[in-house]
Formats: sequence, structure tokens, C-alpha cells
Amino acid sequence: MKERIITAICLMLVAVPCVIFGGYYFKGLIGVILALAVYEMLHICTRPKIKMYLYPIVCGFFIYGFLFDQDDLFLASYGILIYLIVLFGATIFDDTLTIERTSYIFTMGVLICAGLHALMSLRDVYGFQYILLLALATYGSDTGAYFAGVFFGKHKLIPRLSPKKTIEGSIGGVLLGTLLSVGYASYLGLLENNVILIAAFFVLTFTSQIGDLVFSAVKRHFGVKDYSNLLPGHGGILDRIDSILFNAIVFSFFLVMVRL
Amino acid sequence: MKERIITAICLMLVAVPCVIFGGYYFKGLIGVILALAVYEMLHICTRPKIKMYLYPIVCGFFIYGFLFDQDDLFLASYGILIYLIVLFGATIFDDTLTIERTSYIFTMGVLICAGLHALMSLRDVYGFQYILLLALATYGSDTGAYFAGVFFGKHKLIPRLSPKKTIEGSIGGVLLGTLLSVGYASYLGLLENNVILIAAFFVLTFTSQIGDLVFSAVKRHFGVKDYSNLLPGHGGILDRIDSILFNAIVFSFFLVMVRL
Repeated sequence: MKERIITAICLMLVAVPCVIFGGYYFKGLIGVILALAVYEMLHICTRPKIKMYLYPIVCGFFIYGFLFDQDDLFLASYGILIYLIVLFGATIFDDTLTIERTSYIFTMGVLICAGLHALMSLRDVYGFQYILLLALATYGSDTGAYFAGVFFGKHKLIPRLSPKKTIEGSIGGVLLGTLLSVGYASYLGLLENNVILIAAFFVLTFTSQIGDLVFSAVKRHFGVKDYSNLLPGHGGILDRIDSILFNAIVFSFFLVMVRL
Repeated sequence: MKERIITAICLMLVAVPCVIFGGYYFKGLIGVILALAVYEMLHICTRPKIKMYLYPIVCGFFIYGFLFDQDDLFLASYGILIYLIVLFGATIFDDTLTIERTSYIFTMGVLICAGLHALMSLRDVYGFQYILLLALATYGSDTGAYFAGVFFGKHKLIPRLSPKKTIEGSIGGVLLGTLLSVGYASYLGLLENNVILIAAFFVLTFTSQIGDLVFSAVKRHFGVKDYSNLLPGHGGILDRIDSILFNAIVFSFFLVMVRL
């Protein structure tokens, strides 16, 4: 527990200034997270193990075409398709890749990069407060679920994927996450007649838990406990950012679609 | 062989007028192909079998967001991410879906729809002749590979995926495909000082064969011989359009990127 808290403080000391300063600080942070996330997502594939040449391909495509050409949606769309074709090409010549394994690399790659891309857009277009709102809804839901589960947990949620999660915990997560994010949005004065933003925070506390379960399902599928040991006490980068990736996509979808 | 030729003639009688007339005729044709392709791509998943509720989800998402809102790349991009999140949600509650199976559904869905989308754009933006050029490069490569393989085939290409294909056949495919498409483009007067278009046709004869091998790898992975029996003598729709899907993406990438 002590190790976990020390790691968390170190992470905050690096991440928070990058989020506040924005610009190249935040881009740099996202780039490092991307590289580590790609490493973890490929590294957990054992039997057969992913060959080394795939790491730079996956990372390179996304850094170039998808992540840093933010405004050019067109280039990003084609980038993603060329990435798909290159991966399929690799499947043909690399006998350790099955079509389902290639699909996993493609799908997780899209998820990770779309999530990080959405984070960057949130910071650039809407500003620092919206990252904080996202974090409150997401980590509020995590924290609420943890404590409500410890104190009131009785009925299992989905034992197949995550044996410890309970329905009571899940409800606690929805309540605390909504409370914190709606509270801060109201403090910022964003909520005047804005039912849709409240609905968005409510939805985010659900998708946060879905993101968490999906990344648990991935670990369970590959038979690993953590994505890596990069963060002592927490596991890997992906163990920390799982729900944020999901929620960044969902949140920016809400913001853009209803033009908040 | 007789059955195969009769089916081919029937297909041509339906498809060629739709391509020539364009507009809603072509949209209708593409819609039918999409529905059948989605059916086949899910239907070959056995052990465990994909549940019925996924068919309308996969089909619906793409018809609405990706295929028919051609001009709105933005909506399509978000459509694809929401589709991803819905599929992940299904993975959590459906214990017959593993994360690799979900990834297969997502990846093949993106490939099929991006290919069909590229076909529609080619018809709408560049016109009927470009579909014909695409078909000549692609099916020319198929045909050349077949006959060159029969007459000169000696060295196996990738026996793991497709035991009958030979290096000699592959070269024959490249030659015939390039010859036919460059010939027709030259007849249309498109080739004046246009080295890049010639390069594009040359590349298409390779990607045609890669597309073919990828769809063979999918069948091999799931242990089926054909995608379905919808087309007597040919197998399924996906057995017929495999290389065209790949090449439509690559061709429209060439056309757009170099602004031919």
C-alpha cells in the first residue's frame, strides 16, 4: 500500500504539470504513454510471442498518422487503413500471427490511440478543466466502487471477469463519480440549464466501469495479472489508464455531438 | 466448372448494370453485398458460435454511420469508435465472446466497410471507368496467377496459407494485371506523363494477391473451405470480393494522396 501511494504521488508530480502547461509538455506525456501502452499491449501476448519488428510498426503508425496530425481527420482515417493493410501483410509472412491475433493488435491499437487522441483534443480545444472533469468522473467512479464494495458489497457483478466486483460497489461508483464531476462542473458554472452535461457525467461513470472490465477481460484472456510492472504497486500503464481511454472517447463524443 | 460459369454470368448481369447506372442502383448493390459479407464473416466463427444479436448490430452500425454518410468523415470516425465500444460492451456480458473474437469482428468489419465505402467513392467521384480499371488490375492479377500457375508453376509461394499458389503464378498475375489495367488506362487517355498511375496499377496486382491470401488465412484459421455456399461454384460473397476490398482501399488511397 505504501509503495502504491509513493508511485501515485510520483505519477501526479509528472502528469499534473504536463496537463496544466499543455502544448508540447502534454504532447510529450501522451507520446511516452503511447509508447509504453503499445509495449504492454504487445508484450502480454504469449504463446506465440509477438516478434520485435511489430513494436516500431504499431508505434510509428500511430505517432505519425493518427496521434499528431490531430486536425487532419482524413489523414488519420487513411493512416488507420494503411496500418490495417500493413498488419495483414505481416500476418501472411509471419507464421506466429493468426488472424485473431492481428485483429487484437489492430483493435487495441485503435482503442489506445483514439483514447489518447481524444485526451489531447480535450486539452487543446476545451482546456485543462475538462481533463479534470473527466478524471473526476472516471477516478471518482473507481474510488466509489472500491469503498462501496468494501462496505456494502454482497452481490457479485460479473464473477467471470472480475471476481471481486459487486453490484453495490458499481452503484457506489456511479453515485460518487456523478457527484464529484457534477459538483465541480457546477462550481465552474458550466451547468446552467445544461441537462446533457449532467447526463454525460452519469454515462461516464458507467463507461468507466465497462472500460475497467474490458481491460480485465484482456488480461484474463492472455492469462496475466498485470499489464507490466512499470508502476510499482499499480501494475502497468494500461492498468492505470484503462477507464480514462474509454471515457475520453465517450466524453469527447458527447461534447462534439451536442456541441456543448 | 459449368456451375461456376453460370453463376459468374448471373452475377455480371446483376452487378454490371448497377455499376453503370450508379446512384441508388449501386448503393443498393453495395448494401446487399455488405449484409451478405457481414453474415459470412460472423457465420464462419464456430466454437463458440456468434450469437444472433450481433448480426444486426454490426450491419446497422456500418450502414448508418460509415457506409452511407460518405461525405461526413467525422461522423464515420466517431461511428467506428462507438461501434468499438458497443462491441466491447457485448464482450463483457456475452460469455461466448473473447477479446480476440471481438477484435476479429471489429477488424473485419472495418476492412469490409472501408473497402465497400472506397468502391462507392470511386464510382461517385471518379466514375464508372475507374471501377473497371480496378477490376482489370484485380481480376487480371487473379486470372494471370491462375494460368501462369497451371502452366509454369514450380516453386511454392506460401504453402502454409495456400498450398497451390506458386511464385511463377504470382509473377504471371502481376504481369497480366498490370498489362490489362495500364492498357485500358492508356486507351482512355489517362496516362499522359502519368507514371504514378502506372505505379498504382503495378502495386494493385501485389495487394490483390495479399488480399486473397489474407482471406485465405481467415478461412484457414476458422477451419472452413468457403465463406458460405451463397454463390454455387464460387463459395461465398467474400470469396469473390476479397481482393477487390483490399484494392479499392489502396487504389483510392493512391488517387487521393497524389491527386490524380
